[in-house]
Amino acid sequence: MANSKYDVTAIGNAIVDVLAHAEDKFLNDQKLTKGAMSLIDTATANRLYGLMNAGVEASGGSAANTVAGLAGLGGKAAFIGKVAGDQLGKAFSHDIRAVGVDFDTPTLASGVPTARCLIFVTPDAQRTMQTFLGACVDLGPEDVKESKIANSEVVYLEGYLFDPPRAKEAFFKAAKIAKQAGKKVSLSLSDPFCVGRYRAEFLDLIANHIDILFANEEEIKSLYQVTDFDQALQKVRGHCEVAALTRSEKGSVVVKGDEVHVIDAEKVAKVVDTTGAGDAYAAGFLYAYTQGKGLRAAGKLGGMMAAEIISHYGARAESDLKQMAKKAFA
Amino acid sequence: MANSKYDVTAIGNAIVDVLAHAEDKFLNDQKLTKGAMSLIDTATANRLYGLMNAGVEASGGSAANTVAGLAGLGGKAAFIGKVAGDQLGKAFSHDIRAVGVDFDTPTLASGVPTARCLIFVTPDAQRTMQTFLGACVDLGPEDVKESKIANSEVVYLEGYLFDPPRAKEAFFKAAKIAKQAGKKVSLSLSDPFCVGRYRAEFLDLIANHIDILFANEEEIKSLYQVTDFDQALQKVRGHCEVAALTRSEKGSVVVKGDEVHVIDAEKVAKVVDTTGAGDAYAAGFLYAYTQGKGLRAAGKLGGMMAAEIISHYGARAESDLKQMAKKAFA
Repeated sequence: MANSKYDVTAIGNAIVDVLAHAEDKFLNDQKLTKGAMSLIDTATANRLYGLMNAGVEASGGSAANTVAGLAGLGGKAAFIGKVAGDQLGKAFSHDIRAVGVDFDTPTLASGVPTARCLIFVTPDAQRTMQTFLGACVDLGPEDVKESKIANSEVVYLEGYLFDPPRAKEAFFKAAKIAKQAGKKVSLSLSDPFCVGRYRAEFLDLIANHIDILFANEEEIKSLYQVTDFDQALQKVRGHCEVAALTRSEKGSVVVKGDEVHVIDAEKVAKVVDTTGAGDAYAAGFLYAYTQGKGLRAAGKLGGMMAAEIISHYGARAESDLKQMAKKAFA
Repeated sequence: MANSKYDVTAIGNAIVDVLAHAEDKFLNDQKLTKGAMSLIDTATANRLYGLMNAGVEASGGSAANTVAGLAGLGGKAAFIGKVAGDQLGKAFSHDIRAVGVDFDTPTLASGVPTARCLIFVTPDAQRTMQTFLGACVDLGPEDVKESKIANSEVVYLEGYLFDPPRAKEAFFKAAKIAKQAGKKVSLSLSDPFCVGRYRAEFLDLIANHIDILFANEEEIKSLYQVTDFDQALQKVRGHCEVAALTRSEKGSVVVKGDEVHVIDAEKVAKVVDTTGAGDAYAAGFLYAYTQGKGLRAAGKLGGMMAAEIISHYGARAESDLKQMAKKAFA
């Protein structure tokens, strides 16, 4: 797919992660929903940060993680998201550009700080995320440049964009431009609670705008309000062109009409931190997909990327991804 | 040593690390001295950061790492160092307090930002550090509170304090208070090039003020300008009460007059990043020492701490250190 300037342009919340270990008791005491992403206000962010263990700061954001991974693999990517001109915003901008992602969304100068996600990693390697959206609430359709979207094979959107007020408009603007340009529109459902917040809108969106859907087992079951994965699988088959459904240690299932690929999970010596596993899967999948490698190869590389991410702390890769891509396509 | 409020109070540069992978070619192209700590100005910091790979931010600072480790092991610690009121300063303050270290040095409000250390980690796990001192240059004797120093069994000083202009005064003030209160004064030589910058002063300092000296092989050879480790060992024996000399994969040697302990290095499955290895050794050593466990046990726990730090990215521990202390003293 060498005709477009970009393989993937992603739109998402531009977030810096603050990762720290936590005990389950802490999550219970603070009434945090384990494994989920919850939105918090400034006061709660300050209070929880005060109670948090010593942390590490690293660029995050679901769709941003995905394009960072895709660029690391060798793909051409752009990102649209809103940071402030503060130290965290500079770190986010540096990190995503350093991996080769084109990022030029105007910086917010209102004084509202860059978004932060406090990530509590429990001993079982599960992550619980508390997000202060900060500058992200200012992302709007004016930040979506037609030339960028029309020059991307795939536009990738995170479901989390339905949380900040005007990002949804940016989302639909991008989907419309992509469709008119004959490009693919891809969505990640992001989080089962995010699906709960916007189920009706997501169902409509998938039917009318989405070509490639990413979801994990909990998210796809929440979307269709079914208790069984196979029921959800049957429903999604007729709902969008391609669905890539991740199932943690059970691997993933990629479905396109009658074509179904069941892909085993990669072996991981020790699962350290599951933050960014789904984002990494989408990165591997979309890189293989935009390289024309087929759906099975896409699911395979997605699984390899997820295995890399969960074997260390943090949501961005530490390994040489170009070597991984070479190995996957050998 | 339960009489003092603190086991260790450390004075050091309060720094946030920015860690990223780099190739040896990059170090050569940029003329960076591999394995060393070099001081850089704002313009160089901005230029190098622009060329740096995507990074991770984590609290650092040599002496700060040591007291963070000591507190993690269960020790009582305080830290004196200067940050600004910016996002990085807030992260530094949060992280050191979150592990239980008492830190209340007044924040710098001049507009000069918190210090940063750009750390380039090469594929051989060696780290090359480029430090922008920022707010650290404002640390002075007024930041050293007599009550804190006089209530610490050990005051721990990093050799890097000779770089910022007024920190040296803080250093001598603390050493004097400790001596008058009958407490121990400990110094880390920090870096072979730092030793080169201040050799005469360090030699005098050790003879007149230092009870416990930490140095690695390169630093102690640089101090005495000898090429052989054993020559350096003989020289340091008569120079200060206790010397703990680290030798990477050869372990460490702890010497106190005629008492010499040769301690093997702990086994490490994979050395990922050597940043903070010496700081971690000092943490383990000083924790065991202030618990009255003897010099061999101190060297052993120092080695265990160093092994933990070099097995992952970053200079602060990721494991449960209280379990490590329990195991070491079992």
